[in-house]
Amino acid sequence: MNRIVITAAIRATIAAGAFIGATVPVLADEYWDQKTSLFSILPIQSNDIVFVGNSITDGGEFSELFGIPNIKNRGIRSDVITGVEKRISQVTSGHPAKIFLLIGINDISHGLTTAKLAERYERLVKRIREESPETKVYLQSIMPINNDFGRYRNLKGKENAVRALNVEIERIAKEQGAKFIDLWPYLAGADGKLKKQFTNDGLHLNGQGYRAWTNGIRNDVKE
Amino acid sequence: MNRIVITAAIRATIAAGAFIGATVPVLADEYWDQKTSLFSILPIQSNDIVFVGNSITDGGEFSELFGIPNIKNRGIRSDVITGVEKRISQVTSGHPAKIFLLIGINDISHGLTTAKLAERYERLVKRIREESPETKVYLQSIMPINNDFGRYRNLKGKENAVRALNVEIERIAKEQGAKFIDLWPYLAGADGKLKKQFTNDGLHLNGQGYRAWTNGIRNDVKE
Repeated sequence: MNRIVITAAIRATIAAGAFIGATVPVLADEYWDQKTSLFSILPIQSNDIVFVGNSITDGGEFSELFGIPNIKNRGIRSDVITGVEKRISQVTSGHPAKIFLLIGINDISHGLTTAKLAERYERLVKRIREESPETKVYLQSIMPINNDFGRYRNLKGKENAVRALNVEIERIAKEQGAKFIDLWPYLAGADGKLKKQFTNDGLHLNGQGYRAWTNGIRNDVKE
Repeated sequence: MNRIVITAAIRATIAAGAFIGATVPVLADEYWDQKTSLFSILPIQSNDIVFVGNSITDGGEFSELFGIPNIKNRGIRSDVITGVEKRISQVTSGHPAKIFLLIGINDISHGLTTAKLAERYERLVKRIREESPETKVYLQSIMPINNDFGRYRNLKGKENAVRALNVEIERIAKEQGAKFIDLWPYLAGADGKLKKQFTNDGLHLNGQGYRAWTNGIRNDVKE
């Protein structure tokens, strides 16, 4: 019985898209606080390559995937553009060699306009460039999603919002002296959806998905 | 309005302890599947030091904390003893130098008896020893918890269950040729609770908590 009740509560929560966003302030903040507290005692160094983002970054094991020890994971699940902005000085203060940014899908799920998302994203990138101009900045496109899984209701019908934000990210990269990386050639099928074999929920990656992503950007990481 | 509804659903879920356990099969399995899929393409090698466990391990950045590149994180949030057993061959097949195991608090939150927990734990350790007898196995005690935070209802009143399982883990270590590491001297206050300065929810660690833990076991990692 208890099991059924829990599942119903969880389903309601999933339906509201809570698991991929900051619509649940308490929970998201708790984990965000734990991770930023840990990151605060782990200094970034000038030869580091830093992956910054949300759950998709958080779930990766980049040192292992690339076979490079000085890659650091600064992903926090559920994070959004403004969340990254709040903590980005933990990264820029170490003036790393490279930052690979992947952020925005949770923001999209929250239903903000492309203009608002682009404004926040641009402010974040400007800040990175100002605080660490020597860091090479890679802005990765929002990954394709696959709503065939029916898992994230707040992403339903947001395919165009993803594409629209990616146009803005490419523009921001050009204007701010960053490099834009379009991840779609590595992850999307001909139908423009995240390939089924790369995911089990239409949003997050499995091993093959991480392999496709990291193989796609391997030259950028190693260049 | 929507926000309030979500929060209520989440509160119900927290109350049921769902976020720290496998009482939510769908969600827990999704993430478990993503991580084990990733781990399956990342081979363990004979000089590796592997941290295996649940969210407490998952949240750590052990290579950085120890300053050792060949430390690998095989933590999966929400995982339980039987979950680790299902995936342990991903680790033992690489015959790593060391395994640091930290598992059981989610099982305790699910209300199993100490005898049942010990049975499962012993089976897991036996399997590790059989599959990779050359690996040095470190069995870490369940960490102290702090219910003053009132965050995890399913851990309320479980302090004695934690202590009881730790007695069993120490026994199993002795019988199975593993090394028992009592983490309490590093993490518990005089009152037997996880020190407030190490956590923001009474269960998970913040940066100071990770520092205290990893400093405590540093000699074991480096020996």
